[in-house]
Amino acid sequence: MCGIVAYIGKRQAYPILIKGLQRLEYRGYDSAGVALLNGDLHVYKKAGKVSDLQKFAEGQDVEGTIGIGHTRWATHGEPNDRNAHPHVSNSGNFALVHNGIIENYAALKEQLTNSGYTFKSDTDTEVLVNLIEEVKKQEDVSLEDAVRIALNEVVGAYAIVVIDRTNEDSLIVARKGSPLVLGIGDQEFFVASDASPIIEYTKNVVYLDDQEYAVVDRAGKFTIKTLGNIEITPFIQKLQMDLESIEKGGFEHFMLKEIYEQPRVIADAVRGRMSASEGWIKLGGVNEFANRINKAKRFIVTACGTSWHSGLIGEYLIETLARVPVEVEYASEFRYRNPIIHESDIILAISQSGETADTLAAIEVAKERQALVYGICNVIGSSIARVSHAGSYTHAGPEIGVASTKAFSTQVVILTLMALQIAQQKGTISNSYLRQVLYELENLPKKIEKTLELDAQIKVIAEQLKDAQNFLYLGRGYNFPVALEGALKLKEISYIHAEGYPAAEMKHGPIALIDEQMPVVVLATNESAYEKIVSNVQEVKARKGIVIAVVNEGDKQIKSMADYVIEIPQTEEILTPLLTVIPLQLLSYHIAVMRGANVDQPRNLAKSVTVE
Amino acid sequence: MCGIVAYIGKRQAYPILIKGLQRLEYRGYDSAGVALLNGDLHVYKKAGKVSDLQKFAEGQDVEGTIGIGHTRWATHGEPNDRNAHPHVSNSGNFALVHNGIIENYAALKEQLTNSGYTFKSDTDTEVLVNLIEEVKKQEDVSLEDAVRIALNEVVGAYAIVVIDRTNEDSLIVARKGSPLVLGIGDQEFFVASDASPIIEYTKNVVYLDDQEYAVVDRAGKFTIKTLGNIEITPFIQKLQMDLESIEKGGFEHFMLKEIYEQPRVIADAVRGRMSASEGWIKLGGVNEFANRINKAKRFIVTACGTSWHSGLIGEYLIETLARVPVEVEYASEFRYRNPIIHESDIILAISQSGETADTLAAIEVAKERQALVYGICNVIGSSIARVSHAGSYTHAGPEIGVASTKAFSTQVVILTLMALQIAQQKGTISNSYLRQVLYELENLPKKIEKTLELDAQIKVIAEQLKDAQNFLYLGRGYNFPVALEGALKLKEISYIHAEGYPAAEMKHGPIALIDEQMPVVVLATNESAYEKIVSNVQEVKARKGIVIAVVNEGDKQIKSMADYVIEIPQTEEILTPLLTVIPLQLLSYHIAVMRGANVDQPRNLAKSVTVE
Repeated sequence: MCGIVAYIGKRQAYPILIKGLQRLEYRGYDSAGVALLNGDLHVYKKAGKVSDLQKFAEGQDVEGTIGIGHTRWATHGEPNDRNAHPHVSNSGNFALVHNGIIENYAALKEQLTNSGYTFKSDTDTEVLVNLIEEVKKQEDVSLEDAVRIALNEVVGAYAIVVIDRTNEDSLIVARKGSPLVLGIGDQEFFVASDASPIIEYTKNVVYLDDQEYAVVDRAGKFTIKTLGNIEITPFIQKLQMDLESIEKGGFEHFMLKEIYEQPRVIADAVRGRMSASEGWIKLGGVNEFANRINKAKRFIVTACGTSWHSGLIGEYLIETLARVPVEVEYASEFRYRNPIIHESDIILAISQSGETADTLAAIEVAKERQALVYGICNVIGSSIARVSHAGSYTHAGPEIGVASTKAFSTQVVILTLMALQIAQQKGTISNSYLRQVLYELENLPKKIEKTLELDAQIKVIAEQLKDAQNFLYLGRGYNFPVALEGALKLKEISYIHAEGYPAAEMKHGPIALIDEQMPVVVLATNESAYEKIVSNVQEVKARKGIVIAVVNEGDKQIKSMADYVIEIPQTEEILTPLLTVIPLQLLSYHIAVMRGANVDQPRNLAKSVTVE
Repeated sequence: MCGIVAYIGKRQAYPILIKGLQRLEYRGYDSAGVALLNGDLHVYKKAGKVSDLQKFAEGQDVEGTIGIGHTRWATHGEPNDRNAHPHVSNSGNFALVHNGIIENYAALKEQLTNSGYTFKSDTDTEVLVNLIEEVKKQEDVSLEDAVRIALNEVVGAYAIVVIDRTNEDSLIVARKGSPLVLGIGDQEFFVASDASPIIEYTKNVVYLDDQEYAVVDRAGKFTIKTLGNIEITPFIQKLQMDLESIEKGGFEHFMLKEIYEQPRVIADAVRGRMSASEGWIKLGGVNEFANRINKAKRFIVTACGTSWHSGLIGEYLIETLARVPVEVEYASEFRYRNPIIHESDIILAISQSGETADTLAAIEVAKERQALVYGICNVIGSSIARVSHAGSYTHAGPEIGVASTKAFSTQVVILTLMALQIAQQKGTISNSYLRQVLYELENLPKKIEKTLELDAQIKVIAEQLKDAQNFLYLGRGYNFPVALEGALKLKEISYIHAEGYPAAEMKHGPIALIDEQMPVVVLATNESAYEKIVSNVQEVKARKGIVIAVVNEGDKQIKSMADYVIEIPQTEEILTPLLTVIPLQLLSYHIAVMRGANVDQPRNLAKSVTVE
């Protein structure tokens, strides 16, 4: 993944780079580094967070009005000082930061080694910077040409910034598959992986497209070209991001703040898109392509991680309400197996960041096959939002906690609206049922608030279970994907091995894990299969497992069997996931805090996964 | 689940019951019990295995020529003496053994409690035997009528045998949703959950159908009726089972024997169904329904556990070769969500035992919607085989180890043949490619033998990793379902929490679990996505995880990065799972043995899951 930031202009670069890297730490925080030009090239890099880099650079020469910075999420080589970016070419002339993966690095490295190059790190990035140097030398061309030629030899994904020790007046940036934003100031330029490091200084930005590069100079000039050396007219956009909204607002962690924002963001997500009293739903994207969507023979969801879970809920929603088959695919698997996609299929691409590389790659395949791509993203102007034919934003606001919470909930809301709207258009649900669900959807923020009031009780349960080595999560129907999501949350932030299963599938294997040490979270709010869930709880209790049951208010039978009971308000069955996920988010949050884990920046993870 | 056995005739019942229960222990072994009539009713029951029951009964009165027996897999109530079967009615007159779940037991229990009945156990079974007693008393009818009336009040699944203290000359059996076989001897009858306890005495059997019951008597007479009281003409079949084949044959465990049988059973599974030199494939079921199958717009796989994993491989095979979309569903989830099934869909129901209740329930729904049901089972004459429209047996022979191995492999073989045959009929593959795959398939048993020679090396790896608390299994494409299967094997028999993932999905969450304690098994034989797998291995190594890589012979790049390397022969990409699964089976086997676990009868599990 990694975050990139760069500056050229009249100000001191170092403070801008550091502040920018801190904003980008959600993208990775294994190690960080900066390179500055000031007569000579000064490079400082360090394993750990941006704050470790700051300490390390203290008292050293960090002067300079041009520089590049990087915060890393390791793909090639351990996260240590040596592997941290920027990487410098053998001559010491070129420094480069890189986000992405060079897939043919091994072959390139061998070639360069044969030409006499040596390597200090295990990274693919150091190969790239030396490749540029070698091309420049061999072809005797400008740095710009060398970068372009080198990138044409490279297989993989990248966003890069290159600087030249001998030229303090310009820098070169390029992208393919990894995001890059160019901020245009008054005779100064900012470069970053997203707009958050830039917004403080300017609202005028250009999003680089794949296979494009730009040369920007101190005089305030910039040119954008394709890797085929054709100049592009830049499209300058105005940023509409609110910096304040990325602060913690009194909560101990971003994740907790985001959990508590769910009543509000769900209200935001439906605002203007439906009216219960008037009985209508209007998602812009669905309206625009109503004809194609209503005729679709199949929906294919492609997503990763938490978004894949919301996609599974989408499958249940769309199949049940609109009666169209839905296939849910891991984006990474979908991409590489020559999938069957017809022109009449609708591809739902779901991604909080809108930058998920696996999902972007899947979209590419779908577009080749002429299918309609419908993006469901949170980040406005993100790559997936831009490459989709149609789409809906989730409007959850910036999500900073690496473990997704409010983005998940709003994805589910969009999928619910979508399923209802298509069902209404196709006449597969009655108007009275539609209104009933819409009223309940309007009511839902209040019910989530009520569920959030269980926080203190859930904290007590967390205290009892915080030392568990393993967890199982079970659910049926709409609650099955929620079980997967609850397990993923715990895994991500507490590092406890938690796994979700369809409740009935437990007896086909996982039940062997159950003994008196094993907490089993059972989502038991289903009305339609209640007796079956009772049987599953019986099976767990018969093996002395610890049952934590999430039930509807007033439940009796499961309450009498479970060790811990969390009672939540009742709602329409199709809206269940929006309530049952709340206690699971809180449970994982409290357990992680009690175990001393870094909730907002869990080890090994990055907020948006921009490598395949 | 549970196993049932019963006898009436001229011999002593007890030895027949005990021997039968031992044969049925694969169905559950939480507790066991017998009831014998000999002037009075004698009931012996005990938590634990059948051998514990034997010890307990030693020296006691086990006389009698009529009796019933039971080995239990707990659904309601802990596995203890009290909850063991048989259960006796309040008057002491009726004793009953039961396999299945009575779903409305709570309501019935309340009703009976109000009428003055008391209960010694937590089971649904004790409710049923008292319900029969109450009906008999209230309606003043024969036991036969009482059983029929009571069963009409019951919601759920069952196979039962009832005996009456006051009548040593007959017994009553009934089934709905759980299997029951009646063996017909010379003036004697045998009853069991499958034929293995019967075959020693007679080859003439009747498989009871759902909603049927039978009254059998000492004089050699039996009548079969529906629960609607209509007499049925029995269909007597000849058993063709070989008792010797259910012995261990020199191996320490059935599971190991079955792993080593794979070269042979794969040869058996393809025999007569294909010819590489002549370039044809002929699965009987596919031939018979060629027209419908070739026109199918969609295949839906419904299965559980290991069979669900082979179904996932089927998805890759059928989509890639025959270019028809395939949906793979957990049977338990599919059943309960009003699935979209068209008449033109083909349902592939996969189950080793052919008795999996969840899968049977899913088939029922599919048949209601007029879809063609194609069964892939191992047990001949099993329920799924009988209710399917068409099908193919896997011919793996009896699988006794609870953790499925050879059944999985042969399921994959059938799915491969099926995908190839449909592809050939539809012209979506070339004849030369078909022959190439068929030749390779003929060669595969030899390559599996070569892979089995790695056993000693894998044992050394197992020794190093046996104390791990957790495992991850990663694979891409055809190897992704194999990763799931490898993780399930380890989970089932060693009780280590192992989890499988598509390799690229790891970075969307599970990577948080990785530290220097975490073994990660990476299946890296894919040619098509090799560089991506290399990146995934890099990501694991960068977090200090322990990498166990399964690679093709001659691999260099991954070999240089992994901690342990298992080199297997190269094969056609679509046949990969049949080779990569072998080292995973052996690894889980050795780890389980080293941890002292009961490999063939792991805790909490049963071989065939005949409850939902």
